[in-house]
Amino acid sequence: MTAPSLLRPRHDEAIATRLARSAATVGAGATLRTADFEDWLEGRRRAHHFEVRRIPFAELDGWSFHPGTGNLGHRSGRFFTVEGLSVHTDGGPYPHWQQPIIRQPEVGILGILAKEFDGVLHFLMQAKMEPGNRNLLQLSPTVQATRSNYTKVHRGADVKYVEHFTTPGRGRVLADVLQSEHGAWFFRKANRNMLVETEEEVPLDEDFCWLTLGQIGELLTRDNVVNMDARTVLACAPVPTDGPEALLPDTDLRSWFTARRSEPEVRAERVPLAEVADWTRGARSIDHVKGRYFRVMAVAVEAGNREVRGWSQPLFEPTGTGTTAFVTRRIGGVPHLLAHAKLEGGFLDRIELAPTVQYTASNHTDRTGPDRPPFLDLVLSADPARVRYDTVHSEEGGRFLNAESRYLFVDADESQAPLEPPPGYAWVTPGQLRGLAGHSHYVNVQARTLLSLLNTGAVRL
Amino acid sequence: MTAPSLLRPRHDEAIATRLARSAATVGAGATLRTADFEDWLEGRRRAHHFEVRRIPFAELDGWSFHPGTGNLGHRSGRFFTVEGLSVHTDGGPYPHWQQPIIRQPEVGILGILAKEFDGVLHFLMQAKMEPGNRNLLQLSPTVQATRSNYTKVHRGADVKYVEHFTTPGRGRVLADVLQSEHGAWFFRKANRNMLVETEEEVPLDEDFCWLTLGQIGELLTRDNVVNMDARTVLACAPVPTDGPEALLPDTDLRSWFTARRSEPEVRAERVPLAEVADWTRGARSIDHVKGRYFRVMAVAVEAGNREVRGWSQPLFEPTGTGTTAFVTRRIGGVPHLLAHAKLEGGFLDRIELAPTVQYTASNHTDRTGPDRPPFLDLVLSADPARVRYDTVHSEEGGRFLNAESRYLFVDADESQAPLEPPPGYAWVTPGQLRGLAGHSHYVNVQARTLLSLLNTGAVRL
Repeated sequence: MTAPSLLRPRHDEAIATRLARSAATVGAGATLRTADFEDWLEGRRRAHHFEVRRIPFAELDGWSFHPGTGNLGHRSGRFFTVEGLSVHTDGGPYPHWQQPIIRQPEVGILGILAKEFDGVLHFLMQAKMEPGNRNLLQLSPTVQATRSNYTKVHRGADVKYVEHFTTPGRGRVLADVLQSEHGAWFFRKANRNMLVETEEEVPLDEDFCWLTLGQIGELLTRDNVVNMDARTVLACAPVPTDGPEALLPDTDLRSWFTARRSEPEVRAERVPLAEVADWTRGARSIDHVKGRYFRVMAVAVEAGNREVRGWSQPLFEPTGTGTTAFVTRRIGGVPHLLAHAKLEGGFLDRIELAPTVQYTASNHTDRTGPDRPPFLDLVLSADPARVRYDTVHSEEGGRFLNAESRYLFVDADESQAPLEPPPGYAWVTPGQLRGLAGHSHYVNVQARTLLSLLNTGAVRL
Repeated sequence: MTAPSLLRPRHDEAIATRLARSAATVGAGATLRTADFEDWLEGRRRAHHFEVRRIPFAELDGWSFHPGTGNLGHRSGRFFTVEGLSVHTDGGPYPHWQQPIIRQPEVGILGILAKEFDGVLHFLMQAKMEPGNRNLLQLSPTVQATRSNYTKVHRGADVKYVEHFTTPGRGRVLADVLQSEHGAWFFRKANRNMLVETEEEVPLDEDFCWLTLGQIGELLTRDNVVNMDARTVLACAPVPTDGPEALLPDTDLRSWFTARRSEPEVRAERVPLAEVADWTRGARSIDHVKGRYFRVMAVAVEAGNREVRGWSQPLFEPTGTGTTAFVTRRIGGVPHLLAHAKLEGGFLDRIELAPTVQYTASNHTDRTGPDRPPFLDLVLSADPARVRYDTVHSEEGGRFLNAESRYLFVDADESQAPLEPPPGYAWVTPGQLRGLAGHSHYVNVQARTLLSLLNTGAVRL
């Protein structure tokens, strides 16, 4: 008789197969038909009282501008602050700018619980109100919690199901990686993106439902249903990789990325919000002098299904709808995405891989000719026959008000997007992007939304 | 007739085999026998005039303390500055400290050129003088250059062979990754670690020699021959991975790491050097009030084979010899290393994987009993029969004076290092560590030195 081996396989191929089976399961899961989802969500909407109204900063409860710095913060010292950022760089079209930025140093958890029903993996999704979403209620991860949330700074209710993510060894971890969020709006923010499978009985709270990966993919073809936090976690799912070939070998791709990250000098420093140039503070908002980018404003919230029953908070409100797109080509028969090594002032490490296009067009009306953001017009004026996907999604509704973007996949040809792309762009396969998304600091949150569409089958290239 | 495929394999298994062949080639390479190496190095030593002497700060040429901040910098604004760092954290034995720190925002290149001779890969190594090395001359990468170096801020000679690393597509990239350096002494420093294979004819400069990976491994069993920059590049070589099994599956290992990195709150902020508490500035050095850790001092250099002929500069001089060790065990027959998720104030992202032990014992004489650094005494008092490797190496001689550490591999058993290690420690295979070293922000520079010993065959577990 031999002792059981202490060793386990470093890689478990079976999980990819099981995720593929879940992605192929559409129309109905174990507990809910996709056709009935909208009624279910509407039911949750009716079950709770939600009201969000804009208020002047002076009516914020517990939040105030620091008399010296002008930074906007909560009296508890937790949650987040709105401060100033000053960026100097030689790595983009703008050598210097200043702006308000959200600072939230604590690492939160975005976690989706998975469980097999009838041999198919299902994911526990929550109907969650966020004050910044135009439709308030969207589908979020099982758990979406800052450390303040689950350590009770809110003095509110417990965060449901969080113990599955905070108790080591309780479930089986399928993914767990720190990922950045919007580098244009957050200063070096990261959240833990977790996918954990359980074999326990899981009592189903009325605001939650089990869906297959394929069902979530179906919902991702609708505007503003699946929230950003859910999308970024789904981007980290270890679904089957595409083939063993690509335009660039992995080593060459990483080398290209290393070179891009090594190039720019970036000095991104926090400055007092009161001293930020080109932004002015009024009673109800802090605005850019040209009315561009976003404004900082405040809301009062009444809600019935959150950890606390009412609160007020600042939000960032973008001034336009974003356009976020991967330009795609089949190269040697294999789908490729044109990734952009993008500098964002709030990134911890200067550069991450972004979609081909990630702009709010109204902010760039004065960039014409060769200064025009690359590929933006290609996407905005694409022949509908080349548009594989075009759906509006919201960014984090807990920090941003009506922050919506059209997410697109647009096919291109050699004349539009050559095999040798301009500097700062590289062709990658979805599998290569997925591999990099298994680590921190590689794939930005907008690219992860687009990756989630591939992972769930919402888009097929 | 079909067009040639545009696709290439994402992974080339052949390179690992070729590196293994090079690692197995010991005793002699195409141009130099290992037995003749010491004579060759001695010849290079005689061929140049080197002199390094300690000088008071007032005799530094071009360097001065800023009248306001007290920061020590060069009048060109380049090279590096010595500034202050203030750290607050809940993630280690010390909740708050201040210290001098080196700030060097530009990304340099550490590059080794590879070329096949008689079917075996050889590596172009340089006999390079660095003022901080006790023996001045050590074996360095082909290229070891800050951006200031190769963009001529020194107004010195060209950096030899650098074009192989800065011309995209010129050679074949085997590795190219940004890696951190000492988080205790540098503020968020990173260098590009590159291994590039060429098929061109390469004229051999007299300060350079071609060695196989195995020969470098032989030299790594000698004290103070192969410098830190060479070791960290060799740690990134894509040598064959060990087997497909480990105590922790890769996903579990990454999840453990993500949890460790998510835990601590770390506030590491630059402060004026003049305001750093517990450090005092004299005419010749800046010292800790208890004489611990390191001192900042200055040297004048005369040299004949560097890019410039004479200069002066500050250096950090540690006050003791470090002890840097992996505790090792065979688990289920497979070698494992006990990695430590270590917080260093200068890391960009809080935590990296460090060796089991990484301490300068003399700094910790007052930590006794349960406060004693874990595993330090196990390593310091190890039965010689359990010591697989014990050799002294220098850290970067361009920034540090006589910064030496004993590097060790020490076998342990269940009573000394249990399969369930204390919090903050995890068992990893060399292959797992190597995989993580293919990305930034995972494996610290001391752990990379130990990994280079495995990659070159200097140590076999």
